[in-house]
Amino acid sequence: MAPDASHAKATPEGLRIAGRIFGSRLLIGTAGYPNQQVMLDAISASGAEIVTASIRRVSLEGYAESLLDLLSGKHILPNTAGCETARDAVLTAQLAREALETEWVKLEVIGDRDTLYPDVEQLVRAAEELVKDGFVVLPYCNDDPVTCQKLADVGCAAVMPLGSPIGSGQGVANPAAIEMICARSSVPVILDAGVGTASDAVIAMELGCDGVLLNTAVSKAHDPVRMAAAMRDAVAAGAGARRAGRIPRRMHAEPSSPRLGLIGS
Amino acid sequence: MAPDASHAKATPEGLRIAGRIFGSRLLIGTAGYPNQQVMLDAISASGAEIVTASIRRVSLEGYAESLLDLLSGKHILPNTAGCETARDAVLTAQLAREALETEWVKLEVIGDRDTLYPDVEQLVRAAEELVKDGFVVLPYCNDDPVTCQKLADVGCAAVMPLGSPIGSGQGVANPAAIEMICARSSVPVILDAGVGTASDAVIAMELGCDGVLLNTAVSKAHDPVRMAAAMRDAVAAGAGARRAGRIPRRMHAEPSSPRLGLIGS
Amino acid sequence: MAPDASHAKATPEGLRIAGRIFGSRLLIGTAGYPNQQVMLDAISASGAEIVTASIRRVSLEGYAESLLDLLSGKHILPNTAGCETARDAVLTAQLAREALETEWVKLEVIGDRDTLYPDVEQLVRAAEELVKDGFVVLPYCNDDPVTCQKLADVGCAAVMPLGSPIGSGQGVANPAAIEMICARSSVPVILDAGVGTASDAVIAMELGCDGVLLNTAVSKAHDPVRMAAAMRDAVAAGAGARRAGRIPRRMHAEPSSPRLGLIGS
Amino acid sequence: MAPDASHAKATPEGLRIAGRIFGSRLLIGTAGYPNQQVMLDAISASGAEIVTASIRRVSLEGYAESLLDLLSGKHILPNTAGCETARDAVLTAQLAREALETEWVKLEVIGDRDTLYPDVEQLVRAAEELVKDGFVVLPYCNDDPVTCQKLADVGCAAVMPLGSPIGSGQGVANPAAIEMICARSSVPVILDAGVGTASDAVIAMELGCDGVLLNTAVSKAHDPVRMAAAMRDAVAAGAGARRAGRIPRRMHAEPSSPRLGLIGS
Repeated sequence: MAPDASHAKATPEGLRIAGRIFGSRLLIGTAGYPNQQVMLDAISASGAEIVTASIRRVSLEGYAESLLDLLSGKHILPNTAGCETARDAVLTAQLAREALETEWVKLEVIGDRDTLYPDVEQLVRAAEELVKDGFVVLPYCNDDPVTCQKLADVGCAAVMPLGSPIGSGQGVANPAAIEMICARSSVPVILDAGVGTASDAVIAMELGCDGVLLNTAVSKAHDPVRMAAAMRDAVAAGAGARRAGRIPRRMHAEPSSPRLGLIGS
Repeated sequence: MAPDASHAKATPEGLRIAGRIFGSRLLIGTAGYPNQQVMLDAISASGAEIVTASIRRVSLEGYAESLLDLLSGKHILPNTAGCETARDAVLTAQLAREALETEWVKLEVIGDRDTLYPDVEQLVRAAEELVKDGFVVLPYCNDDPVTCQKLADVGCAAVMPLGSPIGSGQGVANPAAIEMICARSSVPVILDAGVGTASDAVIAMELGCDGVLLNTAVSKAHDPVRMAAAMRDAVAAGAGARRAGRIPRRMHAEPSSPRLGLIGS
Repeated sequence: MAPDASHAKATPEGLRIAGRIFGSRLLIGTAGYPNQQVMLDAISASGAEIVTASIRRVSLEGYAESLLDLLSGKHILPNTAGCETARDAVLTAQLAREALETEWVKLEVIGDRDTLYPDVEQLVRAAEELVKDGFVVLPYCNDDPVTCQKLADVGCAAVMPLGSPIGSGQGVANPAAIEMICARSSVPVILDAGVGTASDAVIAMELGCDGVLLNTAVSKAHDPVRMAAAMRDAVAAGAGARRAGRIPRRMHAEPSSPRLGLIGS
Repeated sequence: MAPDASHAKATPEGLRIAGRIFGSRLLIGTAGYPNQQVMLDAISASGAEIVTASIRRVSLEGYAESLLDLLSGKHILPNTAGCETARDAVLTAQLAREALETEWVKLEVIGDRDTLYPDVEQLVRAAEELVKDGFVVLPYCNDDPVTCQKLADVGCAAVMPLGSPIGSGQGVANPAAIEMICARSSVPVILDAGVGTASDAVIAMELGCDGVLLNTAVSKAHDPVRMAAAMRDAVAAGAGARRAGRIPRRMHAEPSSPRLGLIGS
């Protein structure tokens, strides 16, 4: 029985983005925790090295200094959550760069406030402009291989297709699309949005993702710190299983023990 | 947003079967590895404390002593793989008790050699007889709540419903059935058969299983040792996520960041 | 592109059970309609020729004559719904034979009143006894190939595995199991229980079922008569698609139009 | 037991596009049949009134006249299959208008030749231009609610999101996305691409689609004419079930027969 070769392709040990290598493949958000201590404990339990925060929360609420202090040692990834046009997103990213002294940005340009789906046309435009301006751009996008290709072509450091709508907890709604994107992408693919529980993160990694970004699944869990630890294990499990090369799915049973020499036969 | 209470029910820290507590919730088989060293390394990487082996292989091939020596420190669980009648299974279990000096047995009574599905009528009969004879019986059974109830009623120490056919790698084919069995069972539920990759093990635990037993998914993986480690992480992730209480699935998006104070709004 | 040969196997034009041929592959129940007229209209719209009724309702409520009159022209299939032992089910079947002058019986022996799953041990015993007594037995059973084989072996005229729990509307919870049962069965396979909407019935037929039995999906729909007509079309669609031999599933796109001669290329 | 109200919303009897009403909700393609007679027989068996053809095939191969003659009585929908830019697609549509004397066009602008996913940026641009030029535009697009909204906003007469990649036969890969698009759309939603068998078409309709467009599922089936008839029934079944208002999915069983008055109780 040959293992499924398509799953056996080697995945590098760490997550490499824009020349930096991170030991953890889990990226985590900072919104919606019961309180700040739970947030800090959860982030710690998750093992995440990259932590994303809305620049609005960081800079406009006079919150920046303390949050930065609290998260020292983490790689801060400001995001442009809530922006609905390329122009707003670019402006917000620039504001974040100034406030946080980082050129990294998680680029969000949403198409409407109900679905929170990206507006891919505005997204590609904003990405292109920010790349030209020296940013390391990680865009939140659709599970659409053509848009992912365009984002890589304009110089994004990774692509971050949604698993399912933000905060929905539906997991990877279209595994075939994510697998196709991973198989074709020249830049790292990070599943962003939709993760609801540990198995969702494992599945994303097994499909070939290089990392998983999540927030609500941890911050709104009954026990955020325990869920954060579960997510750490989940990403490790999925990355390991992917590299290990799973057995093929079969329609029929296959005995694990040899059939010869049965007692009574 | 309230977490899903049905998932938040506490799961005890360890796997308790027949009064013994095991730190690991993963049970692993010994068949089909490329060689003995890979088997030992994989078992070690899996963290499993309970290791199952066909008594035929152990006792009839003059293999018993060395395998027992090699696995010293592990809790050996002989199985009756290949038995097709209650009578054969009982006989095989008794033989195992004598050879291995253990009263524990993984009870398999298959209904045919193609599907390897259990013959539940013979299974319940064999289980009842073995329990009366002092065995600690862990039966491989269907994902059928009525059969699981009968097996608990005759005194089995756990029930081990299949996820999907043995060796098929289809994972948990009927999650609703497994969830229903877990919700109703008075004894531990261990998913047995069908696991193909790490996410399958996580899903089983998230549905409420107390443990996972697998063999082929590790022994026939491209890299068994790496897959064993992934399975260790997977079971931990699933158990943790179950205890942590996942967020509910929603049909609609839910922003993780607050909507007030948007730049540009 | 070759069609999927496993789906192309010929299915006979009508549903043949115990030597009788029925033009419709849909079997329908009589319980739970808003009123009797809706029931009759729905049965008519469904095109079903076999109509099942609980013998309890038929005979004990003094309802028999009128229901029989109303359903004249239909093949009445009394069922033993609610029976929990072989003995009760046999008794109920005999009572039905006397009251309705039919040797046909839908055999139900449930294992508990919560899950309504069959008790397969009692079921096989009751089936065997009824077959010996001259009945045409159609048993409601698990999606378990071994139990289905036993039921065929004791002489049942068909097997009726559940798609999912009675009244749950979950559809075919384990398609691989139903497909395996269909591929191996020597008697007709009729999916019984769990159908919630038209696509569930289509899927059952595409998996190889010879017929579908349903009740709640129609009787409790918002518009039972319209749903009955939809189920008639669904069973026809599924049977037709099965016979027509579907295209294979592919991971990649395949243009329907030839690529040569593109304008602009 | 209340039916699921979200599914009970009324669907009009016919498919209304740009002021015209079609009795059939199935749209069918003309490519890839074994021969022309099978194509004609299949189209006839499908009951489709709208038939799509690549303008390249129609106009460039000197094939136009005969195909038009053969399909007289059908509403011809020329498509721009194979176009990769807005400019090419607009040019092709104009060519089609001249050759076929119709202002209707199925607009395809693919992003690459491997995935055949649309390039939504080019697509919206081409749609806008064609609408301004007086065309009735039916665009093949992603299962992306934001893109669908933009296409409706620029004046498209319908939107046609993919179920899964063209020719893949994967069916509706992301049912939640299709359902969301249907719930929000101000213009008819026609599932286009990915249908492999009858159940896929039923599911699309149950999710709220107003129609289904398919080609390969019929033309490459083992028996195209029989599959075409199955698709006709499938679309009717799905539309009927949607209108009828399905029962809710439940995690637990629900007896169809009343529990009182059981024999033996």
